[in-house]
Amino acid sequence: MNKPAATASPFRNAQQRENDRAAKREAVLLAAVRMFNQRGFHATSLDDVAASLGISKPLIYHYLGAKDQVLFECMRIGLEQLRAAAEEGAGLPGTGMDRLKRFLRRYAECIMEDFSRCVIRTGDEVLSPDIRPSFRALKSEIDQSMRKLIADAAADGSAKVSDVKLTAFAFAGALSWTARWHEPGGPLEPAEIAEQLVEVLTRGIMP
Amino acid sequence: MNKPAATASPFRNAQQRENDRAAKREAVLLAAVRMFNQRGFHATSLDDVAASLGISKPLIYHYLGAKDQVLFECMRIGLEQLRAAAEEGAGLPGTGMDRLKRFLRRYAECIMEDFSRCVIRTGDEVLSPDIRPSFRALKSEIDQSMRKLIADAAADGSAKVSDVKLTAFAFAGALSWTARWHEPGGPLEPAEIAEQLVEVLTRGIMP
Repeated sequence: MNKPAATASPFRNAQQRENDRAAKREAVLLAAVRMFNQRGFHATSLDDVAASLGISKPLIYHYLGAKDQVLFECMRIGLEQLRAAAEEGAGLPGTGMDRLKRFLRRYAECIMEDFSRCVIRTGDEVLSPDIRPSFRALKSEIDQSMRKLIADAAADGSAKVSDVKLTAFAFAGALSWTARWHEPGGPLEPAEIAEQLVEVLTRGIMP
Repeated sequence: MNKPAATASPFRNAQQRENDRAAKREAVLLAAVRMFNQRGFHATSLDDVAASLGISKPLIYHYLGAKDQVLFECMRIGLEQLRAAAEEGAGLPGTGMDRLKRFLRRYAECIMEDFSRCVIRTGDEVLSPDIRPSFRALKSEIDQSMRKLIADAAADGSAKVSDVKLTAFAFAGALSWTARWHEPGGPLEPAEIAEQLVEVLTRGIMP
């Protein structure tokens, strides 16, 4: 026998309201980041983002704030994904080169996804001066992680590196460039592209 | 005995007027490109560019047209420099790898200068839809030249390449990235940076 639907209250509880709010916030961010990536930040209006979701612009303000706060939040998520990739790589067993390769592959894969792509496609000069330093601090953390993984690989002899900083810039540039040329749905999967790029790059620092 | 200044007419002849016009046009472009690179295209107004030269905005319109025409002209000069680098590289004696390395070094050096840097820093989505196709056609020509130089090096056995297109994207990205991180006046000269980057990259395609 079915129990009466005692819990099917038309009122949502605090947890449900919180989940609901988080899901709506995510939907706004995803719609916004895709439009930023496709049209560019300046050519995107929050009115268009709102229209694509069938909501009003004030509702976006309510969830996220003004357009450059929406952008910063998109970039923050993208940088967080790159930071997680660095952390995952650093925590693996194997040689320094193994860890570096794993990080570089994940880095490239992230850049071919929406949020990290936005970090690369949108120059930080569009962020307002009060937000820019936080963005740069997060970005610098990723740069430092890449340098550390390269230096570790050089230190354990699994790589031969003459200038850690320049090598990190070369690798970051080669992988970040996918944000400019990679079209989702192309003939190669992002994972294959990432692997091939990382092979060419790391062969350049083989001992 | 000094001749009387018979030629020192207060009126300029046609050639002088043409030279004068070209010099003024160049000064405007250089002031504009530096401002675009520093502040970003959208944050730069032609009023600011005009003020930095002590002239009026209508004079900029007179020499070059509206802001996105000024930008396109800056990018066209930048792409022309990269195209010249490809042509110079392709015309050299030596192996395919020698020619490729020479082109890649010049490519990186160009990107660390004002006009080619602008090509990289400013996404082409800011160009108006009627100008964008010309820009993309010029850009694609450089891409094709890089691929051809890589393919030639693979063909004469001076390089070993599994995917020419991906390798070209990796190289273009690593070198173009200098537009984002290189600060003029840093500890290394652009030529040294270019050489070291090209060494790391081309070691990755050594036979």
